[in-house]
Amino acid sequence: MTAAFANLKVCIFDVFGTVVDWRGSLIEDLPALGRRHGLATDWTSFADEWRGLYQPQMARVRSGELPWTNIDELHKEAFAMLLAKRGLDHPGEAAAWEFTRLWHKLRPWPDSVGGIGRLKKKFVVATLSNGNVALLINMAKNAGIPWDHCFSGETFRHYKPDPDSYLGVVRSMYLEPAQVMLVAAHNNDLRAAQKCGLKTAFVHRPTEYGPHQKLDFAPDGDWDVVGQTIEDVATKLGC
Amino acid sequence: MTAAFANLKVCIFDVFGTVVDWRGSLIEDLPALGRRHGLATDWTSFADEWRGLYQPQMARVRSGELPWTNIDELHKEAFAMLLAKRGLDHPGEAAAWEFTRLWHKLRPWPDSVGGIGRLKKKFVVATLSNGNVALLINMAKNAGIPWDHCFSGETFRHYKPDPDSYLGVVRSMYLEPAQVMLVAAHNNDLRAAQKCGLKTAFVHRPTEYGPHQKLDFAPDGDWDVVGQTIEDVATKLGC
Repeated sequence: MTAAFANLKVCIFDVFGTVVDWRGSLIEDLPALGRRHGLATDWTSFADEWRGLYQPQMARVRSGELPWTNIDELHKEAFAMLLAKRGLDHPGEAAAWEFTRLWHKLRPWPDSVGGIGRLKKKFVVATLSNGNVALLINMAKNAGIPWDHCFSGETFRHYKPDPDSYLGVVRSMYLEPAQVMLVAAHNNDLRAAQKCGLKTAFVHRPTEYGPHQKLDFAPDGDWDVVGQTIEDVATKLGC
Repeated sequence: MTAAFANLKVCIFDVFGTVVDWRGSLIEDLPALGRRHGLATDWTSFADEWRGLYQPQMARVRSGELPWTNIDELHKEAFAMLLAKRGLDHPGEAAAWEFTRLWHKLRPWPDSVGGIGRLKKKFVVATLSNGNVALLINMAKNAGIPWDHCFSGETFRHYKPDPDSYLGVVRSMYLEPAQVMLVAAHNNDLRAAQKCGLKTAFVHRPTEYGPHQKLDFAPDGDWDVVGQTIEDVATKLGC
């Protein structure tokens, strides 16, 4: 590990796309749950459109159109929007929660659990996701991700890339920004963290969006670490 | 495990006294740190008085005399109060933080790490402490306590035994109160949790306050589980 990281204490991780394969997991899980609830549609495009509503839904909170609303609630509402758009009947509140909770069961990329486990020996490893705390805890429990803690946009009532999300971690941990590193597969997330003074690690996830991926095939900023995988980031941080 | 606990999902733990031996740890650590900073006093009574200011300090937040203030800040202020009372010079801000951070390094009782590890296989295991999140994360990292997450009074901006602390966990996890169990060595903490509908487990810690212990030698409520240790609680919950 280079001297540049001698003071690093905490690695926080973007989760959707960086740690877990949301698209592959949803495409695998949606058809069976759809059948159980008598819903027939193209679930692959449904998964892509559901994720497509993620940023617009958070934007409604950011703009003040909605009061603070967590991701479970935003996912559930977006699910209903998509059903309506496709002319499908809403299967009721309990079923909508079953679909929404598929996001609690997303599976990690093959290198995630091992890489995070290695980093955990040297650093505090935690999420900094826009997913809510229940989602993150349930996901970790289901997938065996060994977080020390789950920080969330919910914790600070600010969604990334708002500075108060990154700085919320820094302040609550009583650290300097450069003692915290964001690990993410998304350049815009890293850019926002770097503006706040955090260290940054880019991870390649070129298949996150399947055939629809348009961004983040490569690092496009001056990131402190670039890894092919989280295992690779661990190696580069001397773990 | 009896049917009564079939729906239990989350075990939250009181920390100071229940999981860690704050008194034994402080009595062990204070003298050396005092010497380093040229402070001489009876550190055993200092530890007891420092802990003695814990409830009064939180009461100032609860009453509105202070705005929301976390435990690190309250500990640091109480440290200064005690120095003044004993006619000792304040050693400066950086040193005051060193003393305050002794609370981040409290050691677990011998059964804590093993018992929590067993419970973790079946339940989400998390703190619900009035200690702030940084303190709880640092303590867990130092002592090897395998929490899934650290909930704190800081998370909900309500100190226990305010109902909003216990119900904060219940609500953010989207559970019913009876799906969450508080594990604590303090009857008043369990009583407040039970009033909110949580399940309760009492753990015997008869030496927490050393020769000054006056309360909590025995369970004095209708708790769902009573254990001699956290290992014993794990056994009684079928872990």
